[in-house]
Amino acid sequence: MKIGFIGLGIMGKPMCRNLMDKGYECVVYDLLPDNVEQMEEAGAQRAESAAEAAKGREIVITMLPNSPQVRDVVLGPQGIAEAMTRGSILIDMSSIAPLASREIGETLEEKGIEMLDAPVSGGEPKAIDGTLSIMVGGKREVYEKVRDLLLCMGSSAVYCGTLGAGNTTKLSNQIVVAMNIAACAEAFTLAKKAGVDPELVFQAIRGGLAGSTVMDAKVPMMLEGNDKPGFKIDLHIKDLNNAVETGHELGMALPMTVQVLEMFEQLHGDGLGQKDHSALIRYYEKITGVSVRK
Amino acid sequence: MKIGFIGLGIMGKPMCRNLMDKGYECVVYDLLPDNVEQMEEAGAQRAESAAEAAKGREIVITMLPNSPQVRDVVLGPQGIAEAMTRGSILIDMSSIAPLASREIGETLEEKGIEMLDAPVSGGEPKAIDGTLSIMVGGKREVYEKVRDLLLCMGSSAVYCGTLGAGNTTKLSNQIVVAMNIAACAEAFTLAKKAGVDPELVFQAIRGGLAGSTVMDAKVPMMLEGNDKPGFKIDLHIKDLNNAVETGHELGMALPMTVQVLEMFEQLHGDGLGQKDHSALIRYYEKITGVSVRK
Repeated sequence: MKIGFIGLGIMGKPMCRNLMDKGYECVVYDLLPDNVEQMEEAGAQRAESAAEAAKGREIVITMLPNSPQVRDVVLGPQGIAEAMTRGSILIDMSSIAPLASREIGETLEEKGIEMLDAPVSGGEPKAIDGTLSIMVGGKREVYEKVRDLLLCMGSSAVYCGTLGAGNTTKLSNQIVVAMNIAACAEAFTLAKKAGVDPELVFQAIRGGLAGSTVMDAKVPMMLEGNDKPGFKIDLHIKDLNNAVETGHELGMALPMTVQVLEMFEQLHGDGLGQKDHSALIRYYEKITGVSVRK
Repeated sequence: MKIGFIGLGIMGKPMCRNLMDKGYECVVYDLLPDNVEQMEEAGAQRAESAAEAAKGREIVITMLPNSPQVRDVVLGPQGIAEAMTRGSILIDMSSIAPLASREIGETLEEKGIEMLDAPVSGGEPKAIDGTLSIMVGGKREVYEKVRDLLLCMGSSAVYCGTLGAGNTTKLSNQIVVAMNIAACAEAFTLAKKAGVDPELVFQAIRGGLAGSTVMDAKVPMMLEGNDKPGFKIDLHIKDLNNAVETGHELGMALPMTVQVLEMFEQLHGDGLGQKDHSALIRYYEKITGVSVRK
């Protein structure tokens, strides 16, 4: 089966490669010709537009930066909605606002095109390894049709509910991760400010109720001053903005999320947007004048 | 060796029992005669005042509600500082402000009395089982002298630094736990508000970077509407107030902690102070009008 694959960035490229490794033919498109050429060399068929990549395909995958890009590629002029046929499936694996997923899906539904939102977590390393965690929203029977295909790119593909549920789950994940990073940053800065070695605090509390994957993965980075991404602040800003906007559109304030978002915004303003999100510790270091690093 | 044990509340009683089970004789005092009687029946020697419990003891343990009570029992009129002798050791196992520990310790040092701060985590069940996590501040050689004794009450006794470091570590722990509870509450309320089953979100994200001991222990309680403590909101309010005050005295603002504290304060105001801290979800339910429960 030939798959249309649109969006060949840091994530899209290895995901597409994994599909091809498992025997799927891919017709690919990206705004940047360089990305298309790389995938052509890897064995993909090149398309000159998103619509061309999508035309006649049973399944089209999009992996794009954010809601406006997905809306544009799907519903814009020369969008893939015009190229796709009744009964085909769009799997949008971008991390976008869940309400955007729903809107796009409603328009596609009128044309008889199915859609799933299937954002991923795990970042570039797991995209390369094909071990992403994939969170899926849409009709369950459509999910079941493409589940094996998704598992070429991920080690899990969890069904979360109707269209938008994948992105809602992803946003919930990003809220918890961001706040947990902030929790560690605030707590360990206080410890250092009080004259206590943050490494000893880390060892003392990580085994108890305060323990978390974030603490184990990110606090050592904070203490070593290692802010190589991992997951970039600018991407976390994008996700948290989507979370806050989703909340507001649904009539819910996110008082904690918005605070962490503002800290990330300050770091972005300080030129640190490309650093790992654990560099949030630098916000606290700057505000307090304390260095938490060893 | 006879130990003075002052403060026989929910935590103090089982801790004292574990010491006696391991062969230590305890001379006990509490403001409430009932508590003293219970421990007398369990084999302790009764004292009529804190000073009497402490007089002539090599080691005195205090397990009291907060900084003012410890200050009062140690340094107040008829305080144990007057009764203890040069070379003896006060182990304050209360969870109090680290700066209060330091102040009390400085006064004791002038009298040649050693002091450790050794707050615990794990709550009543682990106090009963003798499996508390004990975080210790003070001189390392004093810690080493009493380490075996501490391990009659806990499964770990981690040395965290100079006097106050135990309580600083405890406060760091409480900050991380509180914010992680808030993270889960905010994220799962958003999911429910967006029409996604929080149980599916929980299953989808708990294995990834968002995973934590809080998520595994407290989110099921939130989803079941089970707010039986565990750890009470009013106690978490006390700890977070100590954290914020400690920060302020050191010249550090705790912008995230203070937000969670205010949510807990609202729940206290709503008469829920005796519920488990995971009942923070009720704040979000009230604000949003959404029920996160199954």
